[in-house]
Formats: sequence, C-alpha cells, structure tokens
Amino acid sequence: MGEKKMTIGVLTSGGDAPGMNAAIRAVVRTADNYDYEVIGVRRGYAGLLDEDFCVLDTKSVGDIIQRGGTILYTARSKGMHLLETQVKAAEICRKNGMEALVVIGGDGSYRGALALSKQGINVMGVPGTIDLDIGCTDYTIGFDTSINTVTDAIDKLRDTSASHERCVIVEVMGRSAGYIALWSGIAGGAEEIILPESYDHNEQAIIDNLIERRKHGKKHHIIVNAEGIGHSASMAARIEAATGIETRATILGYMQRGGSPTCKDRVYASAMGAKAVELIHEGKKNRAVCHMNGVFTDEDLETAINMTKNLPDDLVNLSKNLIRRRSL
Amino acid sequence: MGEKKMTIGVLTSGGDAPGMNAAIRAVVRTADNYDYEVIGVRRGYAGLLDEDFCVLDTKSVGDIIQRGGTILYTARSKGMHLLETQVKAAEICRKNGMEALVVIGGDGSYRGALALSKQGINVMGVPGTIDLDIGCTDYTIGFDTSINTVTDAIDKLRDTSASHERCVIVEVMGRSAGYIALWSGIAGGAEEIILPESYDHNEQAIIDNLIERRKHGKKHHIIVNAEGIGHSASMAARIEAATGIETRATILGYMQRGGSPTCKDRVYASAMGAKAVELIHEGKKNRAVCHMNGVFTDEDLETAINMTKNLPDDLVNLSKNLIRRRSL
Amino acid sequence: MGEKKMTIGVLTSGGDAPGMNAAIRAVVRTADNYDYEVIGVRRGYAGLLDEDFCVLDTKSVGDIIQRGGTILYTARSKGMHLLETQVKAAEICRKNGMEALVVIGGDGSYRGALALSKQGINVMGVPGTIDLDIGCTDYTIGFDTSINTVTDAIDKLRDTSASHERCVIVEVMGRSAGYIALWSGIAGGAEEIILPESYDHNEQAIIDNLIERRKHGKKHHIIVNAEGIGHSASMAARIEAATGIETRATILGYMQRGGSPTCKDRVYASAMGAKAVELIHEGKKNRAVCHMNGVFTDEDLETAINMTKNLPDDLVNLSKNLIRRRSL
Amino acid sequence: MGEKKMTIGVLTSGGDAPGMNAAIRAVVRTADNYDYEVIGVRRGYAGLLDEDFCVLDTKSVGDIIQRGGTILYTARSKGMHLLETQVKAAEICRKNGMEALVVIGGDGSYRGALALSKQGINVMGVPGTIDLDIGCTDYTIGFDTSINTVTDAIDKLRDTSASHERCVIVEVMGRSAGYIALWSGIAGGAEEIILPESYDHNEQAIIDNLIERRKHGKKHHIIVNAEGIGHSASMAARIEAATGIETRATILGYMQRGGSPTCKDRVYASAMGAKAVELIHEGKKNRAVCHMNGVFTDEDLETAINMTKNLPDDLVNLSKNLIRRRSL
Repeated sequence: MGEKKMTIGVLTSGGDAPGMNAAIRAVVRTADNYDYEVIGVRRGYAGLLDEDFCVLDTKSVGDIIQRGGTILYTARSKGMHLLETQVKAAEICRKNGMEALVVIGGDGSYRGALALSKQGINVMGVPGTIDLDIGCTDYTIGFDTSINTVTDAIDKLRDTSASHERCVIVEVMGRSAGYIALWSGIAGGAEEIILPESYDHNEQAIIDNLIERRKHGKKHHIIVNAEGIGHSASMAARIEAATGIETRATILGYMQRGGSPTCKDRVYASAMGAKAVELIHEGKKNRAVCHMNGVFTDEDLETAINMTKNLPDDLVNLSKNLIRRRSL
Repeated sequence: MGEKKMTIGVLTSGGDAPGMNAAIRAVVRTADNYDYEVIGVRRGYAGLLDEDFCVLDTKSVGDIIQRGGTILYTARSKGMHLLETQVKAAEICRKNGMEALVVIGGDGSYRGALALSKQGINVMGVPGTIDLDIGCTDYTIGFDTSINTVTDAIDKLRDTSASHERCVIVEVMGRSAGYIALWSGIAGGAEEIILPESYDHNEQAIIDNLIERRKHGKKHHIIVNAEGIGHSASMAARIEAATGIETRATILGYMQRGGSPTCKDRVYASAMGAKAVELIHEGKKNRAVCHMNGVFTDEDLETAINMTKNLPDDLVNLSKNLIRRRSL
Repeated sequence: MGEKKMTIGVLTSGGDAPGMNAAIRAVVRTADNYDYEVIGVRRGYAGLLDEDFCVLDTKSVGDIIQRGGTILYTARSKGMHLLETQVKAAEICRKNGMEALVVIGGDGSYRGALALSKQGINVMGVPGTIDLDIGCTDYTIGFDTSINTVTDAIDKLRDTSASHERCVIVEVMGRSAGYIALWSGIAGGAEEIILPESYDHNEQAIIDNLIERRKHGKKHHIIVNAEGIGHSASMAARIEAATGIETRATILGYMQRGGSPTCKDRVYASAMGAKAVELIHEGKKNRAVCHMNGVFTDEDLETAINMTKNLPDDLVNLSKNLIRRRSL
Repeated sequence: MGEKKMTIGVLTSGGDAPGMNAAIRAVVRTADNYDYEVIGVRRGYAGLLDEDFCVLDTKSVGDIIQRGGTILYTARSKGMHLLETQVKAAEICRKNGMEALVVIGGDGSYRGALALSKQGINVMGVPGTIDLDIGCTDYTIGFDTSINTVTDAIDKLRDTSASHERCVIVEVMGRSAGYIALWSGIAGGAEEIILPESYDHNEQAIIDNLIERRKHGKKHHIIVNAEGIGHSASMAARIEAATGIETRATILGYMQRGGSPTCKDRVYASAMGAKAVELIHEGKKNRAVCHMNGVFTDEDLETAINMTKNLPDDLVNLSKNLIRRRSL
C-alpha cells in the first residue's frame, strides 16, 4: 500500500438520515482514488473527542449504500459550543494527522464544523438531515427517503380512513420546518396540511372544513400536522368532540429517519460525499457542499450557515389549490 | 341476464382489514358462478339497517384485490345487541330477498351475525380482523399484512436506533391480544416484547435488561409494546429517566390497518370468501369459515363464538429463547 | 353549476408513467379553480380521433394521486404524422369546444402536439415519460418512480448474487437513453453500467473487470445494461462462457412503468399539471412545461422539441469514480 | 467462556432463499442457550469439503434477521452424489468435532444430507427453498417472500397493462413446480395461470380467452407463466401475432430470491432453525424439520425425502373459479 498522500476524517453528526452511508462510501472511494487515507470518526463530535476512530477503506464501505442509518453512528454535538472543547477537538484532529474533516449533518453540526475551522482545521460540510432546513441548499440527504416513508404511511391511513369515514391526523417530523409536512401532504392528497411557518392556530377553520367536506360526501379526511406544531393527540380529541367524527392521531416518530435510502438519496449523497473530497483535493477550505439551481455546488461554510430559506411559494400555493374546492 | 337463482348479501363490519376486498371479490365471483345475485351492504350493520345497498357483479369487483380497506366501508356494530334492532335487521334482509348474508369481520361482528341467525337469517362468518383474536381459526384476514407493516416499521426504527444508540418503544395494535406484538417482535428482532397475556408490569426488569445489554455493546434496543398495555409515551419517559438512554415511543396507529394486502392475505381471503358461498350453495346454515390445522374448514357459528385460543406456546418460547442471551 | 368559462382537453400519450394521474388530477382541480371545464380524452391521439371523451370533475379525480398508470389510458400516436390526421384532430377539438389541450407524454407526443398547434389548437406539453429523455427539462413524470423500482430490484439481486457469488445482468428501460441505467446503477452499487451514449462494445473489458474483481474477493457482480444496448441474455451466456462464473439476465420490462408513484413524482407531476392550466389561464400559447435549474418554468413548444440534452457529466464521472478501484 | 458442551455445524445449500439468515441466527442462539458451539460452513457442501469455516456466536448473527441472501453463502452441491465425496465430507465433520450438522436447503441438499447421515453424521434438514417443492412440509423458507415479490411485480404490470390495454406474460420461478405461479397468480388477479402440473399446451385456448375478454371490455390481461414451462418471449410473440394485442414478457429472474424476508419467513425460519437444535439436544438423529397440519414437527430424513406432494386442489380450483366468468 505504501504511504498515503493525505489523511481525511469523516463523521456523521446530529440526527441520522438515510443516505449518510452512501455519502461515507463516496468520501472513502473518492479519497482512495487520490490515494488519501480516511479515518472514520464514530458518534460525531463526541467520538472525535473520545478518539473513537476506525480506518475506512474501499472494502469496509462495501454493501452499505442501501443501508439506512450510519455505520459511523451519530450523536448530538453536546459541548461543541464551548471554546475549550473546540480547541481540544482541533488538537485531536492534528494529533491524528487529519488534514481535513468531512462533517455530514444538519445546521447544529455545521456550527460545530465552523468552530473547528476557526481552530485551523479544514472542514467540509455535507448536508445530512431529513428536515431539509439548511439555508444554502435545496437538497439535504435523507429528505427524499423520509417523504416517501410518510407518503406510504398516508396511503395506508387513507385506506382505513375511507373505509371507516374517519378523520386521521398524521404527525410528521421536521422540527420547526414544514418541508416534510408540505411535500408528503401534497403527495398524500391530504385535506389539511398544518405548517409551522404559516399556521394561525385557527382550529375552528379546520373543523369547519371537515364538516363541509363530509357534507359533500368526502369519505376520508387526512390532516398532516408538523412536529413544530405537535399536540396531535389533543387536537384529535378536540376535533372529534366538535364534529362527532371519529378522529385519531398517528405519530410516525423515528421511523421517518430509517429505511433503505431512495435512489435519489443514494445518488445525491454519493455526489455530495465525492464533492467534499474533490474540494479538499482542489485545496479549497471550509466549504459547504450544496445543491442549488439544479447543480451541485459549494459555498463558504460561514456564509452558508447564515443563509436562510423559506418554504417554496409555488408548492405552498399548489397545496392550497389542489385541496381548496376538492369534491365540492 | 334473466332471473337469478338466489340473492346473497355481503357486508364488512368492525375494524377494516387488508384483504377484505379480496374476500368480497371472491364472494361475488363464486356467487356468479352459481348464478346467484349479490347485494353489497355498505357500512356494516348500520348500513343494513339503513338499507344502504348496492348490486355487486363480477365487473364491480374488478381491480380491487390489491386495494386496502373495504369498498363496502365498515362501521362498528352499534345497536345490534338490542333484540328490536336484530328483528328489524332480519326483516330488512327478508324484505330484500337476501336468503343468506356473508359477514366479514371480527368477534363483535360475529355476535351480530349470531343474533341475526336467531331471527332466521342464514349467516356465514368470515374472519376479518388484523388482531387474529378469533378463537375458531388460526388465520384472520389482514393479520399477515399488518405484521409486515409493523416489521417494516421496526426495520426502519432499528436503523436509527442503532445509529443513535437509542431505545425505541413501538406500540402496536391488537387490542387485548398480543399476536401482532409477538410476531412482529420476533421478526423485528426486538429486545423486549410486552404481551398483554403475560406482562407482569415489572418495568424494572425491562430497565435492568436494557442496562445489561448496553454494557455488552448492544447498539439498538427495541421494545415492542402491545396496545393492550399501552402508555408507551410515559413508559419511554420512565425508562429514559432510569437509564439515561434516550428513549422515544412510536405509535403506529391505524396505518397497521391499511396498505395493499400481502399475497397470503389475498389468497386466504379469496379462499374464505369463496368458501362462504360454497357453504350456502351446499345448504349449510350459520357457519363460521375457519383455517385450522392447515386446512380451510368451517364450524357452527355459535360454537365458534364460544371458542377461545391462547398465544401459541412455541412462538412465545421462541421469542424468549432468541432474545435471552443475545450479544452477551 | 352554470356555464363554464372555458373548456380544456387533457390526454396522456405514448408510454404510460407513474405520476400521470397526479398530473391529470392537478389539471382538473386547477381548471376547476378557474371555473373551466375539463374533457378527458381517452387513449391519447387515437381516442381524440375517435372522440372517446369523458367529463372530468374534481370528484372523478379523487383517490387517483397514488395510482400507477393513467386513468385516461394511453396509446402510441400512430397516424399523427400525417397532415390529414392532424387537420381532423384539430377539427374535433374545435367541434367539441376545446380551447386548449394539455398533452402529457414524451417526445413523440410532443411532436403530435406541435402538429396540432400548427392547426390552430393551443397545446400545452407536460413531460410524461420514465425515460427522462426530453431535452427541455431535467425532470419528467415517472422517472423517479422508475429508478426506485429498478434500485429495489438491484437490491434484491445483490442479495442472491452475493450468496451465490454469481454475476447478474439487469436490463433496464430507457430506449436509446441511459438515464435510468445511470441513476439506478449508481444507486444499486453496480460494478458495471453499460450506457447507450458511451458503450464501445468492448465486452472483453467487462469480462476482464469481472475476473479481476473476483480475484480480490468481490462476492457479487451486478451489471446494469440499458435497453438501448439490449441482448442481455446472450451477453450473459458469453460472460459465463468466458469466466466460468454463473451469469444470468433479468429483464425487468414493463414493471418499470408501474407502481404507485413516489412522493417526488406526485408533487412534481401535480405542479406541472397545475402549471399547464396556469399558462392557459395567462393566455400563453403552445408551451412546454419544464423543470430547469431547480425551478418550474416553460418553453415554446417548438423550441423545446428541438432542444437536446446529454447525460450529466458529473454523474457519469461519479459512476466511474465510485466503481473504479472498488475492493481492490 | 470455557469448554462448550457440543459442536454443531450449519450450512446453507442450493438456491438461496430469504429467511435463511433468520434460520442461521436461530440455530446459533438456540445452540448458545444450551452452551453448544456453532461452526458456520460457507458455500454449502463445497465449503464443507474445503473446510471453509467460521465460528458463529450470538453477536455474529446480530442484525441479520432482516437481510436477504445467506451470510454463509451457498453453492450447488456438486459431487455429493459420489460415495468418496460423501466419505470425505463425513471425515471432515468428525475431524472438526461436529457432532451434528444442520443443512438448510432444498431437496438436492436433503439428498446430500441423507448421504452424510449414512456416513454416520447426525444431520438435521431445514427446508429452505422459494419453490415450496419439498414433500414433507407445507412451508419452506423463502416462499412467502418470493410470492410477495411476484405479487408486487404483477401489481405494477397491471397498472401499465391496463393503461395500454396490453397483454403481459410474467415468467416466475419454481422449477418444475407451480406453487409460486399459483399463489402469485391468484393474488395478482391474473387472467391465466399456466402451471407445469396441468398445462396441456393448448395455447389456442389462451388466445381465445384473451380475445373473448377484450370483447367484454377487459382492459388488462396478465398471464402468469411458470419457469417449468418457460419460453415466455416466444409465447408473447405468438399471442401478439394471433390477437393483434401488444404482448410482452417480463422475466423476473433471481430477484425472486432476494429482498428482506417477510414477517412470516422470519418467524417460521426462526422456529425451524431453533427446532433443528432442539432435536439435536433431545438426542434425535437425522430428522427433517417440517410444518404440517398447522404445526412445526419433524420427520425421519429418509422418509421425508421420499414424500411427494401435489398442488393443493382447493387453491387450483379457486384460481379457476375466480377467473372463469370474470367481467363477462
């Protein structure tokens, strides 16, 4: 094998997302093409601080592209907001010869990465979160799988909701962002999509809609409720009390993070993992890998962290227009 | 077309189950082979009392074998415990020329069917419930689909549970019976399966097991909890408090009732729907269609209702033996 | 209801694609919001010429968003290259008061649409094909579902290929375009992806790679072969003869066109169907709905038809880089 | 750990089947409960002869229950019909201290096992084949997953077959047995199911049926053809020539062997793997694990091999009755 030309670290941090393994595999295989060594850091920043490392070669990332979760495990990045922890983490990187570190995770993970970069480590951010709530990119690893998991669940709920002429509330993940709710709500043909970005807490309007639709013979009634609003069980109880229509909540929970990644999540995660290594190879410093305007690109990490984005107006309007007069 | 030789009614009652449509289709097509007419009764006994009927021919049951839910809708059988309701329901059957009625549903539906039979209607019971809790049969329509839905969900939860070294409680349906929990727990490789039939409410033992397994390096920890025990969210909070391991509950809810039926549910439901009509054709009265000892058979309806069954000892023992010393 | 303000026709043409129903539903519901009437044309241009029509209202497109295929049926557009057929088709549109026609289909369908537009009919093209081979757009309805179907199949084939240390050739659709092969090959972790755009018919190189990888302990060997190259069965026979490694072909065929559409195909197809009607509402003439540079947009239909595109270089390179030194 | 009380070998042989991993896991964990050591034999009898072994403990079979294929690999049992090979295999077992050997496979594998038993090795057969063609048991590992894979494929083909008013031939596995064709044909609502056990090669009858059904407005036409009959591509060509209806063949091939096992396959395979070890523990010799008349049981291996079975009459009749007058 001989001496490797450079050593790169890779870690997954924050909530896990389907496709992270595809990204890890692409980091390792792209690095191998340049004859770089890859150190896998287990359990995110916590594992970095504990020096919980493994060597990753092309064989060790075989047969993982189709697996959910992350072979490197992940953990919330506690402590990385403290300067002394940041200094220690950077020292560990240097001690182990990591000339660059690829961080696959969400915005919390990016803040940790930025802090590390301030301590002199070259860090590349790869957007890994099912929530899609990273400002600099219109794609994040895991979102596509997640919305398909939710859509499948809504399809199942629609069967039984129609059979029983029942109302069902599906609570979906996304933290304070409504992307999962919006996409899966449109795809599931939901009668209501409650988004944290726009909900005015007018539950009476939801109840009135439900009664109106039932009058027109609509058999099923599906409400997609975002995690950022929550309280689906009590909402169900109130709606049932007000309408007399049996109403139940389903909390999909962490199953939205799991499962074999979709084709898109595998391909995009692979492209992004590879791009992170290409950027290192090109001598770039502290970049966030992005997908914007239809192309894979990159952005300064600090700039990227400060970018914000909103739910796309066209899809928000679409969701209203497809539902508005439905069946009436 | 000409005069039909007999008229049969068919209804689905109680909780809907995947495969009910396959059973309806088989009732209609088998009846058609004998030149019998089939009246579809919508919304179970409630629809029978409202005379909410439709004529079903072989064409109207085309392309439904793969659909979840029930094209006839279903409803809980309120009121059917009252003699006057039973008398009225029987009169409606007679008035509409229904010489026999096929009831697809669970044990509540069977009791309604028995009551109708006492009023002179020839009733055939077909076991339709995801819960598998009907004493006279080792198969009920929908169970197989339901346990696959839960197994898929556990597979997804295992991905993320392992990635985060987290504990997950999955609450599954089955009312007071543990069949869904037992089967999906074995198939999902769950570390604990909490069954209503045997749980001693010793939560400390669950906690001790969790701590012990974590010591031995077990990354994921999945607890399958049956609906009959419930309270998964508060159980999760207590386990997290006692162990320091992040623990969350997923409530799968009604999605366990939905989805395209599995191959087995389609084939068995078809066989049972066909058998109900064969029994009518043979002049049998008030039978429950069953699957026992590996064959499709039938039983006197009243006898069937009084039969009980227990979780199979072999599978209960298997679940313990496969888990007991795991990873230790 | 009263007089409708305008009448729009909608048809699906060419090969069917999952998501076409979502597009039809969006056309109808968006039209309904503007108080336009929608005539559904069955079996594409053939049905247009036969005046095989149905009225579509918001109710008739209920519960179709999750269905594969197309409720309007489709057919190849035979005869539409003849001027007299084009003139007749335009006359039928006028006779039936169709002020605009939405054509959901591939490039053959677009050529028919352009011909109709020359005869004075306002035509809107919506890109519906699993092949992704329409020059003016980076998204076509059905592609996303199709690549997930193929990826699932490759995952299954990998299981058994690895267990038997066997070589498997998967032949995938896409006509003369390699998009499905490229995406599903990357996602499936295929060892070879044979693309019509670049294949040099050097089968010996494929054989040498296979022998080389087997030497290094690679258990499975999956070759994705595009329809445009074909002859997978004879290729399998030659590879087995040359290597002594058992090699079999799987021809997925039309199942790549079926299945419940993915979340993305439902959302994008909905957005595109809605946009077609918006364009009509805005008074635009003869446009092709596109998705380019990350946004939904539109293009002059004739210009659109003359646009070409190539396989994306970045993904082609990615596919080579992830495979090249794999496991060696 | 200390001295183990006994050493057991386990191998998978013949075609792989989903659920084999669940069986291996159950062998290992049940053995561990009795403090027996388990040697995994790779690549079936070929690996036994090569002494390609690994030690399996409870940890090494963690997280495999959901995986398709077999972690032990498999191979056809070439050479095991020769006495000298049988003698050598038995010597290798003895030399390595294997007091018993669990063989998971089909009837070819059972014959190899019987030969070994004649050489003094205690052998337990566990039925692992997707074909269901083992006489002594009504369940074999992998059949349930396989028929669901085929049913899903037929569902997808039905979408596009209906949209195009096309005829589709699906060729399914099963060697000379029609179980997969029969079950998936019923579940898929196929218009024809061609079974090796009963096909009279009257293709004209198939063609006449197709023409008759099309006359009555049937949109799709699906023919399930068993591997034992084969030649689906040429059959499609002849049918298209005779009817003028576009007809295509899909050859599902080895994907029927892959995929994550269904809940039933995981539970039954676990029960059977565990039972094999229980039988060894009880001092039984040379048994075949079976599922008959609704219970897990066992049979003398030699007797088991000589048992035959037929397609179940009730399901064969059901398949005819559900199709016969359909849509007419």
